[in-house]
Amino acid sequence: MGKDKINNPSSGEISEESKTMVRNLAQRIYDLDSEVYKAVGSSLGRTFNGDKKAAIDQLYRLILTNPQGYRLRSEIALVGNMARTIRDKSVKAQLMTEYNEILKETKKIPLSFGNVDIIDETLANLNSSNFGHTMSKEDHLIICISRTEGSAGTDIGFALADALHINYYDAEVFRDVLRKIDDEKDVEWKGVNKAIKHKRARAFSRYHGLSMRDAAFFNESEILCNMSKEQDFIVVGRCADAVLINNHIPHISVFITAPFEQRAKRIMELEGVSYKKASRILQILDKKRERFYNFYTGKVWGNASNYDLCINSASYGIKEAVDLILRVINRDSKGN
Amino acid sequence: MGKDKINNPSSGEISEESKTMVRNLAQRIYDLDSEVYKAVGSSLGRTFNGDKKAAIDQLYRLILTNPQGYRLRSEIALVGNMARTIRDKSVKAQLMTEYNEILKETKKIPLSFGNVDIIDETLANLNSSNFGHTMSKEDHLIICISRTEGSAGTDIGFALADALHINYYDAEVFRDVLRKIDDEKDVEWKGVNKAIKHKRARAFSRYHGLSMRDAAFFNESEILCNMSKEQDFIVVGRCADAVLINNHIPHISVFITAPFEQRAKRIMELEGVSYKKASRILQILDKKRERFYNFYTGKVWGNASNYDLCINSASYGIKEAVDLILRVINRDSKGN
Repeated sequence: MGKDKINNPSSGEISEESKTMVRNLAQRIYDLDSEVYKAVGSSLGRTFNGDKKAAIDQLYRLILTNPQGYRLRSEIALVGNMARTIRDKSVKAQLMTEYNEILKETKKIPLSFGNVDIIDETLANLNSSNFGHTMSKEDHLIICISRTEGSAGTDIGFALADALHINYYDAEVFRDVLRKIDDEKDVEWKGVNKAIKHKRARAFSRYHGLSMRDAAFFNESEILCNMSKEQDFIVVGRCADAVLINNHIPHISVFITAPFEQRAKRIMELEGVSYKKASRILQILDKKRERFYNFYTGKVWGNASNYDLCINSASYGIKEAVDLILRVINRDSKGN
Repeated sequence: MGKDKINNPSSGEISEESKTMVRNLAQRIYDLDSEVYKAVGSSLGRTFNGDKKAAIDQLYRLILTNPQGYRLRSEIALVGNMARTIRDKSVKAQLMTEYNEILKETKKIPLSFGNVDIIDETLANLNSSNFGHTMSKEDHLIICISRTEGSAGTDIGFALADALHINYYDAEVFRDVLRKIDDEKDVEWKGVNKAIKHKRARAFSRYHGLSMRDAAFFNESEILCNMSKEQDFIVVGRCADAVLINNHIPHISVFITAPFEQRAKRIMELEGVSYKKASRILQILDKKRERFYNFYTGKVWGNASNYDLCINSASYGIKEAVDLILRVINRDSKGN
């Protein structure tokens, strides 16, 4: 912020050097526009009509007074769009070179378009599908899938695990893993279990006063973090995206959904129920997931800004959604 | 629907042949589970404990009575996850082969997991990033970008157009194109314009009774459809995704957003304003886009199920978001 105050409205000062640079650029844009429209053979579509000095002044003001640069981008886009229609190849090549040079120059203007990034370094560093950030060799490939009911998110997750030859975890699998850990613990806890006769009191003592649901969630989160040190895997649900972000563990989070009508159709076929019943199932299960996610993460379930990526499975289908994710993480369809 | 009633709850009939097939499969899953746990050297983690006949019966019922197949998938996943930990390579290879065979058999069960697709053929056929559907040679590459304010969606769109060497259109560019068409029309309309003196009456006559906003929208939509017959391009905003779906024109629709806080930070830097002011800008402009989109499309702006893909630009940044989209559409960073 404020590295260069060239067109920052909060600063009144613009150096003479900057002014000269911007005026030169305005002149070049104007000249390119003239050349392009000469080559296209039309003046009607010309971006900057009228008096040359006035047009350059206008461009100059545009660059200096519009901090977002979007007007400048649009003006440059217009010239570029027109230049691409030039039939004479050598003229086109020459003018496109100048166009690209101007683009480069534009990027030197601190608050021009594209110069202030939206990147959140913390998120970007944890995003395994952001290849601008090299992952550590100890990091495993972890893909977190959240999904709406009926969107085939779990089917896509399972097929993806299969394509990548990595483990697959969902609520059922976790329940099983937890049950086994519990069975093992039961041996250790035998004495205590005998001493505390009341079932709820036993659970209270065992889970340090947490509710069964909270205890299960925290147990799952702990298992998730431990697993992420040892293996590549796909995890469906369990707020895994939020758990991994909170624990600074790299992963990619994907939300899978599809239009309600399409999901309802699928449930009708899978469950052999009416449209009305299918809609009810979707509403109840989505609501349940929403409550669970919002409660444990403090974020809004299904909001695209929580995940790295959202996929509309109706636009892809199961197989192509898997292939899409493979392209996103730079793997081929054999998982290499 | 109902091609095979093997495990459709709405049908009471299950053929003897199907029953035998499912019983064989249950037996194979049970056997694989035993083999895997023998190889791993643990029986504690075993998926199917206890009496063999009872376990197979349980699996058999699971396959036949659970139409969604998710319990079956989870059971199979557990066995597979464990099999991948086998250290002896030849034993592992042998058991993974059997695992894959079982997966294949499972897919023959009509309503097992992954067998009822979520694909909407209409959407899939119009989705240029779904490579399961071959596009016609006359189809152009059209990328529709919708975005929240401050998410750098326009910057990503412009940089993407630049990488692909294709045209870029946004509201400003459209306004300019429309203005030029209007200028051209003015010549034709000179006589009429003179006859109708009142400005609003003139507009009413000219736009066939539509409001200026509606007229502009329908003009833009028409230009969009005409352009799509002639060129590859990126279009930002203008409900282009919905317009192209309604007109059966293949494209890929991408919604770009980022967490509110990150967008606010970016606006603060771009506009040199306070956090409070930046938040206000975001709220006003997002609300404006939301109203426009909902009004003209009848859909909910920003809902992931309207677009092929949503991208969290904070997880990628401008450059990596461009690269991500290039991977999605199978182009390299030089646009080839």
